[in-house]
Amino acid sequence: MLRIGVVGVGTVGQSVCKILEDNKDIITARAGVEIVPVAGVVNDLSKKRDVKIKLTNNVDELLNDDNIDIIVELMGGVEKAYEVVKKALEKGKPVVTANKALLAYHRYELQEIAGDTAFEYEAAVAGGIPIINALRDGLSANHIKSIRGIINGTCNYMLDKMINENIPYDVILKEAQELGYAEADPTFDVGGFDAAHKLLILASIAYGIDAKPEDILIEGIENITSEDIAFAKEFNYSLKLLGIAKKKNDKVELRVHSVLIPNKEMIAKVDGVMNGVSVVGDKVGETLFYGAGAGGDATASAVIANIIDIARKGKGSPMLGFNMPLEDGLTLASKDDIETKYYLRMQVEDKSGVLAKIASILGKRDISIKTMLQKSYDETKANLLLSTHTCKEKDIKEALNELKSSGVVLSMPAMIRIEE
Amino acid sequence: MLRIGVVGVGTVGQSVCKILEDNKDIITARAGVEIVPVAGVVNDLSKKRDVKIKLTNNVDELLNDDNIDIIVELMGGVEKAYEVVKKALEKGKPVVTANKALLAYHRYELQEIAGDTAFEYEAAVAGGIPIINALRDGLSANHIKSIRGIINGTCNYMLDKMINENIPYDVILKEAQELGYAEADPTFDVGGFDAAHKLLILASIAYGIDAKPEDILIEGIENITSEDIAFAKEFNYSLKLLGIAKKKNDKVELRVHSVLIPNKEMIAKVDGVMNGVSVVGDKVGETLFYGAGAGGDATASAVIANIIDIARKGKGSPMLGFNMPLEDGLTLASKDDIETKYYLRMQVEDKSGVLAKIASILGKRDISIKTMLQKSYDETKANLLLSTHTCKEKDIKEALNELKSSGVVLSMPAMIRIEE
Repeated sequence: MLRIGVVGVGTVGQSVCKILEDNKDIITARAGVEIVPVAGVVNDLSKKRDVKIKLTNNVDELLNDDNIDIIVELMGGVEKAYEVVKKALEKGKPVVTANKALLAYHRYELQEIAGDTAFEYEAAVAGGIPIINALRDGLSANHIKSIRGIINGTCNYMLDKMINENIPYDVILKEAQELGYAEADPTFDVGGFDAAHKLLILASIAYGIDAKPEDILIEGIENITSEDIAFAKEFNYSLKLLGIAKKKNDKVELRVHSVLIPNKEMIAKVDGVMNGVSVVGDKVGETLFYGAGAGGDATASAVIANIIDIARKGKGSPMLGFNMPLEDGLTLASKDDIETKYYLRMQVEDKSGVLAKIASILGKRDISIKTMLQKSYDETKANLLLSTHTCKEKDIKEALNELKSSGVVLSMPAMIRIEE
Repeated sequence: MLRIGVVGVGTVGQSVCKILEDNKDIITARAGVEIVPVAGVVNDLSKKRDVKIKLTNNVDELLNDDNIDIIVELMGGVEKAYEVVKKALEKGKPVVTANKALLAYHRYELQEIAGDTAFEYEAAVAGGIPIINALRDGLSANHIKSIRGIINGTCNYMLDKMINENIPYDVILKEAQELGYAEADPTFDVGGFDAAHKLLILASIAYGIDAKPEDILIEGIENITSEDIAFAKEFNYSLKLLGIAKKKNDKVELRVHSVLIPNKEMIAKVDGVMNGVSVVGDKVGETLFYGAGAGGDATASAVIANIIDIARKGKGSPMLGFNMPLEDGLTLASKDDIETKYYLRMQVEDKSGVLAKIASILGKRDISIKTMLQKSYDETKANLLLSTHTCKEKDIKEALNELKSSGVVLSMPAMIRIEE
């Protein structure tokens, strides 16, 4: 029998306990041993929870209990969770976590501390989709050319509704909050931070690269307007928040932002609250992994898969996918050096000479225009929507600043990157 | 250093050798040990191959060589491959295979023979997609409700061209043969047998069920006509060859056949020569795994992932996913008891009373009609296309036979199952 201690008995923790009971037959047959949740840690003992395990508000009771074989960390947050996981690993107790923030900041220290003790985290990225498993084990023969992940269901749900049902941002945010898809303070999701945490974990497995959220480009979906949506439709694009990792020679681009992506691409078809991760390997080509990225049961499915793995083989693959460092390691590309295509939206004065001025500001930085759409706003103003061929982030940023102060553009132009 | 012996040095075997060299840096870092192909077995030593390893036509040289750590079986076929794999495992040499036919017939004996020796086969199903990995490890907490797999790229390519470019079956088959997607004798692919082999492997992992190709319903795509294609388009269906496994109480339906599937479903979007497998777990919901199902490099990607796995952890998960049998094991459902929706196509005399007769033959078996489309063929004949609500395979088969001898239907009606 394998006895589980659950630190944090919220939605996911309760699902873990319930599934271990519901699916005891198949889990025991697959694991070769009975897996039983025996104790849990909560902050507030007076709050009612639908579990049969013994609850305490003192985590040390679990950490010091020799009868607990595996610690499941579902408390969330960074520093307190780090202390709990560290202690457990130092005691040689295997740990399973769903905590992406913890890993975004401490994955390399924890790998070190874990040593030969199993430390697994399938549920930390894309919930029920076994993407850690796929990237770390299934695609291990490949140099990874790129990862593009729809790894925040809240944003995908909102963008889907905005583009397919023409619902404005504020309205759909409120609806997402009512449905429980978005928090009261939605910044963590709609600002791209949640996706960034997950992207950093994937990037470690793909590239062996250590980076923190502060090091990478993170933008959210807060500034998407109905004009952007109309442009996307006009040119057969979907609008998605993507976590992107791309290898270019010995550099890796890591970035989270909204993108316009051709409708025909497989990842553009990942709709609603679902997650999807496209991984391109140099040998396998494009693969895509699709499923529920959140929710108690889907997340618990991944947590329990890790527990079964530990029951079967103890410590399996190296935590972050590498048994030794890459000889010629990869480094993080500068934000300025990111290269992609761009969509620009700006309000301009509706008079002659304006287009020439804009074209000149772009042209002198070798930014060439691919498509353009001008829509009258009122008698004196127009909305100008255009897309560019591939150019550098630095050049676009400079061009946007010059456009702003050019006298012909009426406010700071908006920009969305295009993934093709 | 881990030394590999490759039995069968064709397209995949050569890719395995090449990738181990091309990606040596990342493979070594991930595996923690250098992986080197050292010897290969071929039938015809005079044929030129693009590999640097020592070649022999005597497999025993490899099996008896203590310097060879892992045998990679890529020779294909069933009985000869079985003997080779058996000998290797009996000598305690781990085996990696891409041979689905071997596993379709001998997976349970080989699991027994392997015991604690690693025996892996990721490449046997859906080529480069790590679906064995996902189903056996990533989704192990779930009772699997269903698997629906596009696991034959040849058929998917042909159906895609038939439906999206209106190319007739014979023409597209010839094109697929010229492109190397279909063999000179295409029966194995277009008859559904290749997909059936793969389905049986997945069904063992999902359900612990032992079945052989002879035990299950296997139909191909040979009888699809332009009328069927037109009907599919009319009602927003895609046309796919699916391998289907479905749990219904304590029975499992296993079947391979063409299906009409609503365009909006994620698996309907898997186009061209690509593969995709949708797995529905009772806790995780629907997941989908997409990628290249064939080709030297994609298949070799999976073979090498298995070798890296063995380097990392020796024998990992139980070969077929179960460390002990399920207490209340599942059994194979009878072909007659399959329940689904059906599309029927028949040529009828264009005169009064015909529809009433057909409706009566269906109605007395509780087969109710959902949609109908009648198209005049000439002055005396019409094509009748209809879809049913859910009913039993046995009833449909009986109805089709009665329709044939009813006097109003001019030849044996055609039938395609509908997956919704």
